[in-house]
Amino acid sequence: MVQTMKCIVKTKAGPGNLEMWEKPIPVPGAGEVLIKVHLAAICGTDIHIKDWEEFAATRMNPPIIIGHEFCGEIVAVGNGVSEERVGQLVSAESHIACHRCSLCLDGKENLCLNTKAIGVHIDGCFAEYVKIPSENAYVCNPNIPEENNAMLEPLGVAVHAATKVNLGGKIVAVTGCGPIGLMAATVAKRLGAGKVICVEPNAYRAEAAYKMGADLVLNPIECNIVDEMRRICEGIGPDVVLEFSGNIGGIQAATKYIRPGGEIVIGGLPNHDVPLNFTEIFYRGVNLYGLSGREMYHTWKVMTGLLNSGMDVSGCISHILPMEEYNKAFELLESGQALKILLRP
Amino acid sequence: MVQTMKCIVKTKAGPGNLEMWEKPIPVPGAGEVLIKVHLAAICGTDIHIKDWEEFAATRMNPPIIIGHEFCGEIVAVGNGVSEERVGQLVSAESHIACHRCSLCLDGKENLCLNTKAIGVHIDGCFAEYVKIPSENAYVCNPNIPEENNAMLEPLGVAVHAATKVNLGGKIVAVTGCGPIGLMAATVAKRLGAGKVICVEPNAYRAEAAYKMGADLVLNPIECNIVDEMRRICEGIGPDVVLEFSGNIGGIQAATKYIRPGGEIVIGGLPNHDVPLNFTEIFYRGVNLYGLSGREMYHTWKVMTGLLNSGMDVSGCISHILPMEEYNKAFELLESGQALKILLRP
Amino acid sequence: MVQTMKCIVKTKAGPGNLEMWEKPIPVPGAGEVLIKVHLAAICGTDIHIKDWEEFAATRMNPPIIIGHEFCGEIVAVGNGVSEERVGQLVSAESHIACHRCSLCLDGKENLCLNTKAIGVHIDGCFAEYVKIPSENAYVCNPNIPEENNAMLEPLGVAVHAATKVNLGGKIVAVTGCGPIGLMAATVAKRLGAGKVICVEPNAYRAEAAYKMGADLVLNPIECNIVDEMRRICEGIGPDVVLEFSGNIGGIQAATKYIRPGGEIVIGGLPNHDVPLNFTEIFYRGVNLYGLSGREMYHTWKVMTGLLNSGMDVSGCISHILPMEEYNKAFELLESGQALKILLRP
Amino acid sequence: MVQTMKCIVKTKAGPGNLEMWEKPIPVPGAGEVLIKVHLAAICGTDIHIKDWEEFAATRMNPPIIIGHEFCGEIVAVGNGVSEERVGQLVSAESHIACHRCSLCLDGKENLCLNTKAIGVHIDGCFAEYVKIPSENAYVCNPNIPEENNAMLEPLGVAVHAATKVNLGGKIVAVTGCGPIGLMAATVAKRLGAGKVICVEPNAYRAEAAYKMGADLVLNPIECNIVDEMRRICEGIGPDVVLEFSGNIGGIQAATKYIRPGGEIVIGGLPNHDVPLNFTEIFYRGVNLYGLSGREMYHTWKVMTGLLNSGMDVSGCISHILPMEEYNKAFELLESGQALKILLRP
Repeated sequence: MVQTMKCIVKTKAGPGNLEMWEKPIPVPGAGEVLIKVHLAAICGTDIHIKDWEEFAATRMNPPIIIGHEFCGEIVAVGNGVSEERVGQLVSAESHIACHRCSLCLDGKENLCLNTKAIGVHIDGCFAEYVKIPSENAYVCNPNIPEENNAMLEPLGVAVHAATKVNLGGKIVAVTGCGPIGLMAATVAKRLGAGKVICVEPNAYRAEAAYKMGADLVLNPIECNIVDEMRRICEGIGPDVVLEFSGNIGGIQAATKYIRPGGEIVIGGLPNHDVPLNFTEIFYRGVNLYGLSGREMYHTWKVMTGLLNSGMDVSGCISHILPMEEYNKAFELLESGQALKILLRP
Repeated sequence: MVQTMKCIVKTKAGPGNLEMWEKPIPVPGAGEVLIKVHLAAICGTDIHIKDWEEFAATRMNPPIIIGHEFCGEIVAVGNGVSEERVGQLVSAESHIACHRCSLCLDGKENLCLNTKAIGVHIDGCFAEYVKIPSENAYVCNPNIPEENNAMLEPLGVAVHAATKVNLGGKIVAVTGCGPIGLMAATVAKRLGAGKVICVEPNAYRAEAAYKMGADLVLNPIECNIVDEMRRICEGIGPDVVLEFSGNIGGIQAATKYIRPGGEIVIGGLPNHDVPLNFTEIFYRGVNLYGLSGREMYHTWKVMTGLLNSGMDVSGCISHILPMEEYNKAFELLESGQALKILLRP
Repeated sequence: MVQTMKCIVKTKAGPGNLEMWEKPIPVPGAGEVLIKVHLAAICGTDIHIKDWEEFAATRMNPPIIIGHEFCGEIVAVGNGVSEERVGQLVSAESHIACHRCSLCLDGKENLCLNTKAIGVHIDGCFAEYVKIPSENAYVCNPNIPEENNAMLEPLGVAVHAATKVNLGGKIVAVTGCGPIGLMAATVAKRLGAGKVICVEPNAYRAEAAYKMGADLVLNPIECNIVDEMRRICEGIGPDVVLEFSGNIGGIQAATKYIRPGGEIVIGGLPNHDVPLNFTEIFYRGVNLYGLSGREMYHTWKVMTGLLNSGMDVSGCISHILPMEEYNKAFELLESGQALKILLRP
Repeated sequence: MVQTMKCIVKTKAGPGNLEMWEKPIPVPGAGEVLIKVHLAAICGTDIHIKDWEEFAATRMNPPIIIGHEFCGEIVAVGNGVSEERVGQLVSAESHIACHRCSLCLDGKENLCLNTKAIGVHIDGCFAEYVKIPSENAYVCNPNIPEENNAMLEPLGVAVHAATKVNLGGKIVAVTGCGPIGLMAATVAKRLGAGKVICVEPNAYRAEAAYKMGADLVLNPIECNIVDEMRRICEGIGPDVVLEFSGNIGGIQAATKYIRPGGEIVIGGLPNHDVPLNFTEIFYRGVNLYGLSGREMYHTWKVMTGLLNSGMDVSGCISHILPMEEYNKAFELLESGQALKILLRP
């Protein structure tokens, strides 16, 4: 008799169309592991899927169980995977690399030309069980708060951003204090930033930024952000900007207030083209760095070391809800009165 | 009796206003050297000055002798400079750094907050003699062709661009084949690029690009440059773009055809804002690097090593004229039927 | 009926014990490919195996077919490998990584804690056919000389060494002109070295070094190498040393003549401890870099780009012999009157 | 009438020969500043000078006022220095670079071929006043504890060591817990090290290491340090070793317990040659980095950012004594029952 599980399914194309279904518990194939999900987290991507934005419409072929941020325990393994893995507490790298394309061969698996994403191309983790390739199941530290382990995937983006540049003793601006921006503030400080200045108009998020370690949070609506940022950064602006707002005006401002020779990591993606003044940016020796996923698995190693030493990013969690309340979760996220929301199956 | 010299002077604000004047030979002050100019070269900046574009109007206070690319012999030294320098063949770093601002102290003298430029803020080298700070007079190799020594300043920009990234075995696109782009093609190949593909619509320049070492020159008007570039670059585009066109469409195309994880060095500066699709660029892990001047004096060391080993960039010179014919030189440059033009005082 | 093939087998522990055997052609298992060997090359490791030195005695469990440098054509594939690979001309990365240990997960597969080596732990390529993991079969360019493709494995060591540091315009000493040192001279020049100075007492090898692109070859027996090296390198020594001699005195000399802030890549491994003067080396800001195998597969990408652009290292080959004459080949190598020797099955 | 000051002078060659003299207050020359010393610190170099070890005997020409670690206030400036500097609280970069040699021109002023050291080649800071080049007087933050400002020079060595490698999330061993090793433990943790493990046999220093942020201190006499270090570091050893012991056995052990691909920064300098097993070290992909002084002035910028954000290294100070008690200070240092000792003029 096939056992079943509850799961949240994007049932068909178009906005909405999220339903809780009962489906058979998957069986791990060759090289795969089956994981009992302990705690999952909602990502902005899940909202794009719900709303059927271009990102989702061009990639997905419903019905698909959504969700890709989680931690859980390996309960079964497929052919070719060591039985020793059963019982391991794991989280998942959500990008499945092909290991054969030019970019994989060049050590850039996070940019794989044939990447498949958990919860997008294959069934995800908003479910009681999820099966994924064994190599994507990264072992967690069971001695740290479970909430942190459930957020390794998005935390990895923050760590990836913060490790793109050398932050030691530098003034770092973090623009946009959604969950990843908030985590980036914590990470930047932990990696040696001398001062972390967040930019965020939403008071609810600004308050969280202080809790996450920001030395200062500026409201770009209440001040001339370019003048103010320069003024408080030795008259010449921050050394580094970690950009997670995806706001066109915010990005343009950052290119103005960053100091000559400064570095901007682009983690936020605006919906429209961003007009940039090249003389202002590049003739001042400023660099812009792209960011995609996490380095496999170097970023995970750095992240693990930081978490094991006590770094805690659970301050970016606003709610933990039963998985059944996923509709409420999405509503909270759209209200702007939530940060990271975790779901417990 | 004061001796005089011929020189080309921007006599007053406004377009034109270039005249050949007779002025006293300058006397080197403390820390300065006086150089007898052997050969000078015209830069795009000199055209901006002639035409009194914003770059010039916001920086210059005429009358000023223009010109900043040259080689010559030290004939006198000021207080505090060793007499041993007299007789040295030198070229000049055109940026005079303050050595006191935050950026100088951080080892980024090329981004000095108080930089003064030869031929812009102080009298330049379109003259029989020029005086500059001793530290800006970099010793040349007298055994290489004089034309190369006269172009160390712009060659340094090409070397700086090509050393921003590791080129070993890579496919490198060079967009825009003015003199610096042409030199960049030579330098990229010499620094290990596997293949150098130039992009240039002007047939005259395209021909020069082949002479300078390009493996292929594409005309972006005659083909779909994005498709074509990807097609010939393993289906995924070049690893690196060294951009010197300053052309908005060309830059946008480069951001599309560059491979994931690729790197773009921005050396060309468009007059208007460039609208960029951040998802296309940064979510694919592409980096953009700014470029200003030359690293003082690391770039000069690399350049010297390359020239000493036989690298020759004189193929980018289209004319060598007597300094008196400066009007003809500017006309040639504006006609598009010239590359680098050297002036002999 | 099982088909058989000729192959060279280390038949049992102890010096010697190399025999040509007739064995069944192997059958590729899951994830493996079967390759018809076109051309193989003898490595110093093969001599260690023949002489049963510690390296071999601690790793090998004979009988094993030896040999790990080669090129050939894929003629069959095992389960899970695309049939499209049949017909590909390939060479092999000789290190088989586990992809699960801490170092593999950190992107350092060449330092895998569980590495298996072709021709050491598993049957190698001194045979008409060899089977290896599909991922280790790197696609070759059929349009370059076959001899180069047969040497990608050792050339990769030279490329790995030369890409450990930035060589643009620098003075590079290559110490020890065995095949890898010779290839390193070619690669260093191609990657932008301003001057390549080889150090080699053997006249036969010194002559080859000139053919491979060395600007100068010094005989350390005929001169005071420390004084001479400094004298010809701007009075302060080379910027970089690529060390492949494994000679204790040669290494000590290199640590003395290298300039302050210089970099030494260690590719040669002495049999005994090397006494080093730390003040002389490290207080002068000198760095020493270890070298193991090739970066998987970044080094292969760089190497491929260089070879595709015309780099030729076949000048380090002294003999190409039928595989049957392997005894003669080993004798030649021990005589010092040979460089790289290739075997044709 | 010339005003005089008290100062500690190495009066002549040979061991001992330290006396407190009364000398005229120096007058700052062109480009120099005169500083009233607030607080100075004794360095190991000062002990070498007292004992007239080779380092001192080959460099010094007594009588010379010794001392080079301090902070104080600029009270007068020489010709060419802005009067605005008067009143600044400063510390000193002790290396005076020539700015003309190949290494200075290559941006490596800390390796200057013509370097002069304060308190070695020219009069130092164990005095009521000291004059130094204006460029060597680095502005301090008056709002942090004065003790920290007095130790910027040695702290800079610790910061330089810790910034040679990327420490984010890594396991870092610090070997040797003298003042710089102790400071390095604090700095490593602040720059993101996941775990800092100190190695120190002296119980007095081991206790200080815990206060300075070490997660664990191992006594290499009481355990098999190689086995123990591997055991507690994921079975494969630390990622990084910051070596400040200068102990031959300690260094050899570090080369054994460091993990493959690990990095060792050499800050301690043994009196004798260190025999190293190259296969063990370099064939495992380990790198060794030399360390000299501080990057001018990039290291100072990083250090300033860390101190401004609250990093405190005063825990490495065991005594603050009046300058007159310098004999007692040296005795304490030789007893092993002292860490950093500060002198107040």
